[in-house]
Amino acid sequence: MSSLHVITGGAGFVATNLARALLERGSRLVLIDNLSRGKRSYVDALGHSNRISFIEADVSHEGELEAALSSVSAEPDAEIWHLCANSDIPAGVNDPTVDLRDTFMVTFALLQLMRRNGWKRLHFSSTSAVYGDHGSAPLTEETFVEPISNYGAMKLASEAAIRAWCESSGGRASVFRFPNVVGVPATHGVLIDFVRKLQADSSVLPVLGDGTQRKAYLHVSDLVEAMLFIRQRDLAGYQLFNIGPRDEGITVREIAELVCQRVAPEARLSFGAEGRGWVGDVPRFRYDVSKLAKLGWSSAQSSLETIRMAIDQIAMQEGVGAP
Amino acid sequence: MSSLHVITGGAGFVATNLARALLERGSRLVLIDNLSRGKRSYVDALGHSNRISFIEADVSHEGELEAALSSVSAEPDAEIWHLCANSDIPAGVNDPTVDLRDTFMVTFALLQLMRRNGWKRLHFSSTSAVYGDHGSAPLTEETFVEPISNYGAMKLASEAAIRAWCESSGGRASVFRFPNVVGVPATHGVLIDFVRKLQADSSVLPVLGDGTQRKAYLHVSDLVEAMLFIRQRDLAGYQLFNIGPRDEGITVREIAELVCQRVAPEARLSFGAEGRGWVGDVPRFRYDVSKLAKLGWSSAQSSLETIRMAIDQIAMQEGVGAP
Repeated sequence: MSSLHVITGGAGFVATNLARALLERGSRLVLIDNLSRGKRSYVDALGHSNRISFIEADVSHEGELEAALSSVSAEPDAEIWHLCANSDIPAGVNDPTVDLRDTFMVTFALLQLMRRNGWKRLHFSSTSAVYGDHGSAPLTEETFVEPISNYGAMKLASEAAIRAWCESSGGRASVFRFPNVVGVPATHGVLIDFVRKLQADSSVLPVLGDGTQRKAYLHVSDLVEAMLFIRQRDLAGYQLFNIGPRDEGITVREIAELVCQRVAPEARLSFGAEGRGWVGDVPRFRYDVSKLAKLGWSSAQSSLETIRMAIDQIAMQEGVGAP
Repeated sequence: MSSLHVITGGAGFVATNLARALLERGSRLVLIDNLSRGKRSYVDALGHSNRISFIEADVSHEGELEAALSSVSAEPDAEIWHLCANSDIPAGVNDPTVDLRDTFMVTFALLQLMRRNGWKRLHFSSTSAVYGDHGSAPLTEETFVEPISNYGAMKLASEAAIRAWCESSGGRASVFRFPNVVGVPATHGVLIDFVRKLQADSSVLPVLGDGTQRKAYLHVSDLVEAMLFIRQRDLAGYQLFNIGPRDEGITVREIAELVCQRVAPEARLSFGAEGRGWVGDVPRFRYDVSKLAKLGWSSAQSSLETIRMAIDQIAMQEGVGAP
């Protein structure tokens, strides 16, 4: 029988891209999502297959999660891709219970279910936000962590719970510290924000912060490739990887200019005064991705190439029309 | 008016020692505890004073916590010493919800209350267990964290939530990564375990693990001195400190021999086969305490001197009689 993969947040942006890649490899899939940010249409776009099933359920509720996954509880070799989380960082700054519930408690509930079902293999989407603000110092997996947003804090809390689960249950976990990820179907993030602002008013693009924030971006297709590459290496125990491009990223100003070029070339840019976009925003970060490079994977695209490609894809998604 | 200090876990081992020191400095105290491990008699031993009040309440319940502290909610300068937590590491390995509720959720509930009350100053007892197992490498505050017990994981999760709270609310936090702490009133830990085992059977002392586990120990009187020293420095933002002695610690075998000398000199030692005492036990750890030393504080006692003193105090507490 082909391998079974359960994906939480299964109707989301990264998840549906991952699901497509796993389907192409012949896997069976269970996608579970509460459809708060994910969309049923993203799942439908994967096409019809008896190897895929979608379950609408609230993963943060332990009982609901268990009931939703009861049909596969007897398959001990199921692999879990835990991708659901609150992805709205400012929302979690305003109300910390959002990240508590949607990011940390779902992880805790899932680990409890894995213990009960004897599931031993977990893949988890963590984030660069666990590091906090280290300026332009390159971040390795062993750099100390000091998250400044509740989003980053609850991802770090999840990592910690997973690490302890590995120890007490003999489980294996791959923890991916995602960079900023772009591509389609886009649901949130700086690119879709800029495109929509320009659709509403093509004369000006207001930018949060002063535009100097510099971050690295990875295309979702590269991200999925990296995750499947790490999975294929079949590593033991708890494994932590920064995933990102090899460059130092690009600035918000550059991104804003590129979006204007594509969507509204006449628009002028309007910047804020602050060096960060919002409370808890990390104005710049720079990944050291040599651990993953040593294992054998590097991104083929730079942050700039990635952003150019994603802007075009998102413009098309939002109905801007061909350039 | 004298300064107000709220201590969670206020009827516990460290808390009542801290409370005594703060009372001597003229402070007003509110001690809050659910009496699951702390004892009313420890509070009574602090003596009668109109500067001290004790409240029995479940701190993990946000509403109960808020109601319990309503009498001081209008004092914006209150300082919080958050010391309550599950302290039984093996219990949390067997049932992860223990550390979730008693260590992490209490921290989260407390931070929510601090936001509502505008309280800006927090002192938190974290632990060396956040680091996980780094062998004999010295641990600085910037060493990467990889907790292998749920206890350590939920302390790390608490640190992360506190770090994000500082950022979003402008709060100040001193986070103390405790070593193994000994002294009286002893409620749990290796010393009281050994003393009680020898009282039950003076012919043999069974030791968990093979006795080679090596850890550093600090006396509770030194710990309280260090915490008050750090507080006195009035540091800004989020501050993290390893607190411990300057030596590399002593082994479980040495401790067992010292307890036998004091309690039952004829007893023989019986060791387990494993290099660790239980799942999630870190068999050795070594603190680098130079950050605190640079600030101006070092322990006057070595781990060996500390253990000798504490064994005598605990033997007296348990009614062994003078040597």
